[in-house]
Order: sequence, then C-alpha cells, then structure tokens
Amino acid sequence: MTEHKGTPLTFEDRYDQAVAELEKAMKGYLTPRESAIPETLRKAMYYSLQAGGKRLRPVMCLLACEACGGEDIVAMPAAAALEMVHTYSLIHDDLPAMDDDDLRRGQPTNHKVFGDAMAILAGDALLTFAFHLLALHVQYDNVVRQLVVELANASGAAGMISGQAQDILSEGVDGDLDTVNSIHTHKTAMMFQAATRMGAISARADQAKVDMLGDYGIKLGLAFQIVDDLLDVTSSAEAMGKKTQKDQQAGKLTYPAVVGIEQARQHANDLIEQAVAAIKPIGQAAKSLIELAQKVNQRNK
Amino acid sequence: MTEHKGTPLTFEDRYDQAVAELEKAMKGYLTPRESAIPETLRKAMYYSLQAGGKRLRPVMCLLACEACGGEDIVAMPAAAALEMVHTYSLIHDDLPAMDDDDLRRGQPTNHKVFGDAMAILAGDALLTFAFHLLALHVQYDNVVRQLVVELANASGAAGMISGQAQDILSEGVDGDLDTVNSIHTHKTAMMFQAATRMGAISARADQAKVDMLGDYGIKLGLAFQIVDDLLDVTSSAEAMGKKTQKDQQAGKLTYPAVVGIEQARQHANDLIEQAVAAIKPIGQAAKSLIELAQKVNQRNK
Repeated sequence: MTEHKGTPLTFEDRYDQAVAELEKAMKGYLTPRESAIPETLRKAMYYSLQAGGKRLRPVMCLLACEACGGEDIVAMPAAAALEMVHTYSLIHDDLPAMDDDDLRRGQPTNHKVFGDAMAILAGDALLTFAFHLLALHVQYDNVVRQLVVELANASGAAGMISGQAQDILSEGVDGDLDTVNSIHTHKTAMMFQAATRMGAISARADQAKVDMLGDYGIKLGLAFQIVDDLLDVTSSAEAMGKKTQKDQQAGKLTYPAVVGIEQARQHANDLIEQAVAAIKPIGQAAKSLIELAQKVNQRNK
Repeated sequence: MTEHKGTPLTFEDRYDQAVAELEKAMKGYLTPRESAIPETLRKAMYYSLQAGGKRLRPVMCLLACEACGGEDIVAMPAAAALEMVHTYSLIHDDLPAMDDDDLRRGQPTNHKVFGDAMAILAGDALLTFAFHLLALHVQYDNVVRQLVVELANASGAAGMISGQAQDILSEGVDGDLDTVNSIHTHKTAMMFQAATRMGAISARADQAKVDMLGDYGIKLGLAFQIVDDLLDVTSSAEAMGKKTQKDQQAGKLTYPAVVGIEQARQHANDLIEQAVAAIKPIGQAAKSLIELAQKVNQRNK
C-alpha cells in the first residue's frame, strides 16, 4: 500500500482499510450485473454477502499480496472471489439437509429468510461468480489461470467440499486425531492456504514466496479451526452470534473432544508459532500477517 | 477430425464418436484426483455424470469447434466443463427443495440414492471442477480466461441460475409469452449458446464465427426447450425416463400452456430454421451442426 508507507497504520486500521476496500470492490464487481439477476435471487446473494463477516480470508489475501510488494488493488479480484466462495459455503452448510442452522452471525440464515430453493441457488450463483470475476477482472491471463486452479483446488471435491463431506459422514462416529485433522485441513485450512497463495500469485511473486505464504496459511487455518472448536465449548451463543455447544450435540468430531481442551489449546499455539516461522524470511513486509496470526489465536468470537 | 476427412462418417457415427471421446476425456480429467475425494462424494459425482445423458451440450461444443476447423481434442476441456455444469444443475434442480424429482433418465435421482446433503455437495463439486479443468487442461491462457467468462456467464446468476429462479418464482403465476421466453432462454438456451461459443473459442475462431455459432446455439436451445415442453404434454413417462405431465401439475409456465400445442410446434420449427440460417455462411464445415438441429426438432425423448 502506497498510502501508509509514510504514515504506518496500526494493525487494526490496516485491517479496517482492507475490509473497506474489499466491500467497495465487491459492490463494483456485482453492480453492473445486478439488473440481469432476478430480484429475489439478488437479495438472497447480497443478504449473506453483507451479513457482516470478519472477511478474514480476503484480508489474508491482501496482506499476502502486500508481503510480496503488491498493491491491494492487484489482489482485489482474488480477495473478492475467496469471500464469494466462503459465503456460498456458509449458505449451503446451513441448509436443513446439511448442518441445519437457523442463526449465522447473529442473524437468521439465508434459507430461513429466502427458503431452501433460493438459498441453494444463491450459493450456486456466488460460487459461479467467484470464477467469473477472476476471469473478468484479473489483469494477466496466466494469473487468471493460476488463481482459478488455486481456488478450485482449495474449495472443490479434494478441498473444502471434501472436508464438509467427511464432517457429515463422520457424525456420531468415534474418530481419532487423524480424522479431525483431515476434516479441519480440508474444510478450513486449505481455503486459508489458497487465500495467501492467491495473494502472492496476484503480486506475481516467485514460487518460493507463494509456497512460504501458503505454508503460513494452512497452519493458521488449522489453528483458526481449533480455536473455533474451543470457542464452541467455552463461549456463549450471545458472544458468538450463532448456536454454541452444537458440535457436541451433533456428535461432531472436534479437537477438544478428541485430545481435550488443554492439548487443543497447546496445539493451536504451536501452529501459530509455525505459521509465523514460515514467513519469517519475508521480514518486515509480512508484519501484518504476523500480527494477524496472533489475533487469530486470541480471538474470542 | 483428421480421421474422417478421408471416409466421411454418418451423422450418427460422428455423434457417437464425439460422445465416446468425451467419456474418455472426462475420465481422464477426474481419475488423477479421485483418491483425494471421499468415497461417498466421489460415487455421488460419478453416479450422475454416468447416468447416460445425451451429452448434447458437449457434442455441440465439439461440432462448433469442427465448424471452425479445430480438432475435437482442442475443445475437449470446454465440452467436459459444459457437461459437468449441466450435470450439477440437474442434481440441484431435482432436490426436494427445488423440483423434487425422484426419477431422472430412468434412474433414481442423486439425492434419492445418496441423500440431500451428499447431492448438494456433489453438485457443488461438479460446478467447481468445471472451472478447475478448464484452467488445468486448456492450452492457451487467454482461451482459459474467455472460456471461464462464457461458462460462468451462461450458467450463473444472470444465466441458467436466473432461469431456475424465475421458473420457481413463477410457479402458479399467470405468465405470458415473454415470461416463458425469458425462463427458457436463461434456463436452457444460454447454455446451448455457451456450448457453441466455447467450441469456436477453443478453435480460436474469429469473433464473427463465435457470434454466428452462438446465435445458432441460442436459437437451437430455445427450440430444444419448446420441444421438451411439448414432449412433457404428449409423451409417456416410459419413453422419457422421467415423470411427464409434471409441468402442468406443478403449475409451471410452458410454451404449449401459453400459446397452445400447434403454435408451440410452429415456433420450434421457425427457430430451427433460424438456427440453421445463422451458420449458413460457414458452409460444409457446419454440416453436422445442421443435421443436429434437425434431430433436435424431431426428437421424441
């Protein structure tokens, strides 16, 4: 970011700035196409996109781009595509046929407002638009190709969807640490890895940096999901904006259920350390990502 | 196709050849990734991919490529991607929350075999893989970009998904010809248009040919859907391999319901004529597409 070379932003201000840019960019990508989308479908898409998520994956993408010397604008299509895919996955995961959740980010889930059919279609539409916007808005043809590969790999049948399938198939089954690790890696960590790799690829970084940032991403993603499991056990629904202690009731495999709260906490700490170590060679340019890793470990909602 | 320059194939043999090549290609794209996909999810994906569809969209894509002087192999990723997207749309459309169909191509629908959750995920996975395989297997970077734009535009919120949303939202509503035209164009014809355009783009044809073939595709697609509506009224479930007379029961807007059987039949004939006229300038190279248009008009299942 050119703007804060003179006056360094605090981490919080940098995060807020990245989020504000992202919101503006997503609006900019969608607005020209709005009139061709049936009103109810459009409302269903916007409802979940604007439901006030943390925008963690797109911010990671922008900060990874920054760590490779790229301006935010360069990674903005990748950041928006990641958020579209994340949002679609939440809409589909919340469906009665899947996790059957009524509440998300403190608000009724998409299908509670628009019905199951429109929620399925809104999810399908956001997934499709993620790839569309990469092809429309990324400057270089070879970067488009690489970004589509990264996003599809992380979110597809061997990535996030595999994690969701494993999660559903393992409900009520006695699982071990390997199974939980596999679910968390596929369902969450691979999208974190894609976020940082796509940021680096957008900045046209060399392969070593792409891999380094991807390593940070996958470790941070796994830590994030362990912390999420811990919060499900220890937090209130009010603080989380969604139902808690739900994992246990659903017979879901979680870290604390398999190794206990203390060991889960310790493993999250170890992973954060490893994530930070992975990007140490990048130095000062990766400062924000290092702060982000600490925040993920300390989050309480 | 080099092989049949010496010994011209009949239309039927050419169609069968194209389908055989497609089946082999789809297997080739999926096999290297199989081991990373949970077994149940993989089975659900293959179940619908292998359910014996006509493969009309991918064949149109290959024939459009041929009409522009390209070998089948060049358009194979586009053809496979079109079939993946078509298959995902059938899986999601059949869900209880959508059209609630138990039977498809004479077999139980995906969710009847694998459950709603796995059917939703299998659809999501096929949609994601369509874009993935374009990025992995298309030779030229700029062609990848164009193909992603075409496929996402035709299948997304302003294309096929819009058609499905309009279809659901219009159930039981008194609609006019404009509404039926809009539903059919979005739900069916835009994907036919994408099929021929993507074939031409894969062959790196000039813009005039891409547009000409796209014009053929959208007209043929509309005719195809009108014939489909007519078959729903006039055919038996046995011949169609799915429930018939279902449109009327669901209060769906169809061509024969709005303009009557005779006029619907006439409009399909007119559209086929227009489709054929659109590609007349291409001459002998478009011979198979012209035969295809006649077959679409004469089909009885």
